[in-house]
Amino acid sequence: VTGVTTQRARSEVAKRRRRRDMLSAARTLAVRDGVRAVTLAAVTTASGLHPSAVRRYFDSKEELLLELAEQEWQTWSSAVVTRLRGRTDLPAADIAATLVDTLAAQPLFCDLSTHVVLSLEDGVGYARARQYKASSFEAYDKMAAAIASASALQLAGAQDVLSATLALAAYLWQVAHPGPVLAAIYADVPRWGHVATNFELDLRRLLAELILGAEQYG
Amino acid sequence: VTGVTTQRARSEVAKRRRRRDMLSAARTLAVRDGVRAVTLAAVTTASGLHPSAVRRYFDSKEELLLELAEQEWQTWSSAVVTRLRGRTDLPAADIAATLVDTLAAQPLFCDLSTHVVLSLEDGVGYARARQYKASSFEAYDKMAAAIASASALQLAGAQDVLSATLALAAYLWQVAHPGPVLAAIYADVPRWGHVATNFELDLRRLLAELILGAEQYG
Repeated sequence: VTGVTTQRARSEVAKRRRRRDMLSAARTLAVRDGVRAVTLAAVTTASGLHPSAVRRYFDSKEELLLELAEQEWQTWSSAVVTRLRGRTDLPAADIAATLVDTLAAQPLFCDLSTHVVLSLEDGVGYARARQYKASSFEAYDKMAAAIASASALQLAGAQDVLSATLALAAYLWQVAHPGPVLAAIYADVPRWGHVATNFELDLRRLLAELILGAEQYG
Repeated sequence: VTGVTTQRARSEVAKRRRRRDMLSAARTLAVRDGVRAVTLAAVTTASGLHPSAVRRYFDSKEELLLELAEQEWQTWSSAVVTRLRGRTDLPAADIAATLVDTLAAQPLFCDLSTHVVLSLEDGVGYARARQYKASSFEAYDKMAAAIASASALQLAGAQDVLSATLALAAYLWQVAHPGPVLAAIYADVPRWGHVATNFELDLRRLLAELILGAEQYG
């Protein structure tokens, strides 16, 4: 091993560690303040890097956040596949509970989902976006297969349920996390606020209804 | 009538016309380029106003876009209520078709819906946001009642269907309108693009399944 190779290897290790630190700092910020509040500058400061160094690790905020979304897909997919492994003929309510419990454990994924379709996927280059698509579709396919095996749903029905879960969770999560103006209005008019305080309950009921329907749909 | 009163009345008429012109310009821009691309500066230019005049009519882009969303709620509510008037015992597929056909006729509403929950409602003051809530809930309540009357759904089920329609349409509309990077990827990997090209079909099937389930849900 030459000195140059060792140095390069060391610097590769250091670079990977730096990227990990930045992703971890971004995750902490996003969970605390919401994905909308994350900036590259804040991530740089939080991870103890000099601002001029950040572009060595990520081209943009979008690239950083998309990598978090990719990690979240893998986590969600593994959790669902693990919970459904070996199960068969689960009723609609149990499938809904599996999807909602695992999602509720990943608030960052719920928040990111809206941003992914609105700005993240199209805010990075072709190669990076394509890698994200391949990786998220792989996670999606594993989950759809696991749902079909564990329930009375056909594969197409399981895909419908999974796509709807993502769409409903993305929208309802934003509704459930109002800013200060809406929070004040909800305190004054509780009926309008119900939808903001029942994220898991609403999502679980909507999915149970959808699964019940999808099982019968020709 | 004194001269001053006449002048004030005239200026009120002029102000209302200016606001209407700006809303109309914003609508045109948003439909053509997407809600994300709308800026107050572009709206000002498109409506032939001097940039310094814009704040006389709208405090912010958020206020302007929220007013468009309010108009769209009224339009959608009227369309659904009119189509369902006097109907009873409609099957799930017909209710789904009514909701999706009317939504598909309002692409701006679909696009705005994500922005409403992400940034518009909380980007204006308390009074303006509260007016929006009152107005959109009134539209929502009329539609939910019309759906319950026209179908086998109870009111709670009709509300579930309506909430899910909004959530699914908001998310799937963004998926169906990818930027240039994603569009290129979809051209190269058609399987990933299916979800982007089947907005109405997917939404109709998901809603039909949901309604079928909601009719039976205890």
